[in-house]
Amino acid sequence: MSEVEEVDERVSLDLLKHKMAKFAKERDWDHFHTPRNLLLALVGEVGEVSEIFQWKGEVPKGLPDWKEEEKIHLGEELSDVLLYLIRLADICGIDLGKAALRKLQLNAIKYPAPNKYTQHP
Amino acid sequence: MSEVEEVDERVSLDLLKHKMAKFAKERDWDHFHTPRNLLLALVGEVGEVSEIFQWKGEVPKGLPDWKEEEKIHLGEELSDVLLYLIRLADICGIDLGKAALRKLQLNAIKYPAPNKYTQHP
Amino acid sequence: MSEVEEVDERVSLDLLKHKMAKFAKERDWDHFHTPRNLLLALVGEVGEVSEIFQWKGEVPKGLPDWKEEEKIHLGEELSDVLLYLIRLADICGIDLGKAALRKLQLNAIKYPAPNKYTQHP
Amino acid sequence: MSEVEEVDERVSLDLLKHKMAKFAKERDWDHFHTPRNLLLALVGEVGEVSEIFQWKGEVPKGLPDWKEEEKIHLGEELSDVLLYLIRLADICGIDLGKAALRKLQLNAIKYPAPNKYTQHP
Repeated sequence: MSEVEEVDERVSLDLLKHKMAKFAKERDWDHFHTPRNLLLALVGEVGEVSEIFQWKGEVPKGLPDWKEEEKIHLGEELSDVLLYLIRLADICGIDLGKAALRKLQLNAIKYPAPNKYTQHP
Repeated sequence: MSEVEEVDERVSLDLLKHKMAKFAKERDWDHFHTPRNLLLALVGEVGEVSEIFQWKGEVPKGLPDWKEEEKIHLGEELSDVLLYLIRLADICGIDLGKAALRKLQLNAIKYPAPNKYTQHP
Repeated sequence: MSEVEEVDERVSLDLLKHKMAKFAKERDWDHFHTPRNLLLALVGEVGEVSEIFQWKGEVPKGLPDWKEEEKIHLGEELSDVLLYLIRLADICGIDLGKAALRKLQLNAIKYPAPNKYTQHP
Repeated sequence: MSEVEEVDERVSLDLLKHKMAKFAKERDWDHFHTPRNLLLALVGEVGEVSEIFQWKGEVPKGLPDWKEEEKIHLGEELSDVLLYLIRLADICGIDLGKAALRKLQLNAIKYPAPNKYTQHP
């Protein structure tokens, strides 16, 4: 399948945005993709991620005791969240990649790394 | 600021993942970043996006009547969702970019585009 | 069924709390009902409510165009949210009824009703 | 304040529903209280509950190590979820108390208590 060949080490937000836009257009779904419809779809997918974690108690990093199929399922639900999030930003006219880099900078100002002050005497 | 120079047309999930990992490490926050902590943080940020949209009724694409500051605020909250989502996937050992491309393929199988059948006689 | 006879005009939070506690105990589910497990279960149910509304665009009050089965489904999902919320409060040792009445008083102070000032000259 | 006197051992869903309806009417907020506006407000409040729990790791029942002010804050946020949930059901024309009792019955059928079969020989 040609899609598979496109897989790259560095999947960009832009690539996923364009794929989502093409996907919606080919199915004539653009009229469904309003901001609040997409937001509620995103909330629904976050709910599905939560259902995966809900009865597990604390879960260690790397999910060491999870079955492979559970991890695949989680990957699918996290992807649904990501895809609706990217689509929502696109429909709102927001450049999500640029916004995320800017937010990281704001976070770095809000929460300065301690070594920035200790490393340079 | 050197961060700004890294801004690229195509911000990748990988770039954001590495920035989040570095950010957490520099602040000694890794022990906070457990799967369920990050999931609840993600839910909190989705709540903040919802608060932006909650009293607005239906919102048209492109947010034509929103003030610039409202759009910036929305971009920040969408970014918070994205950053926690990427971090959650990373901590769970899931390759989010690969999972998202795979999910798009599964979606294409589940919802075939009508023209795939009509364009090729 | 005896349960049906208990239905009352005024279902109390206390009644539902006791029914949930009994339900969990009879099934030996108390160890699953930790605060964060219940919170994630609640988020999952809110996701299911959102899925019902996600592609509908703006929905008028009273859901005039909804089929009876859709309304029943919505009632079930809203109930799931309510039951997990009541259980979460109970497990956290919070008197939800008292807290809700107190919150209404705080809201009344925060957002005073205009007629309180105009009606009494 | 007269409100305080109304506090009862058994706060009913009906009481809270009527108080919410009165509150909205007095402030001329009925036009804001559409189903999807209220749903997004509910999601926002669930986000605020999640923020309280997000960095805490597993939390034991009864919140033994929480400060009194944290418990009060949690009670307020759980109340906000409850109040918007009750208002959402009301605006949708759903009798939430009746629906919740019915859902408990459905749950009892779906997950039969083991002792129902073992205790009566």
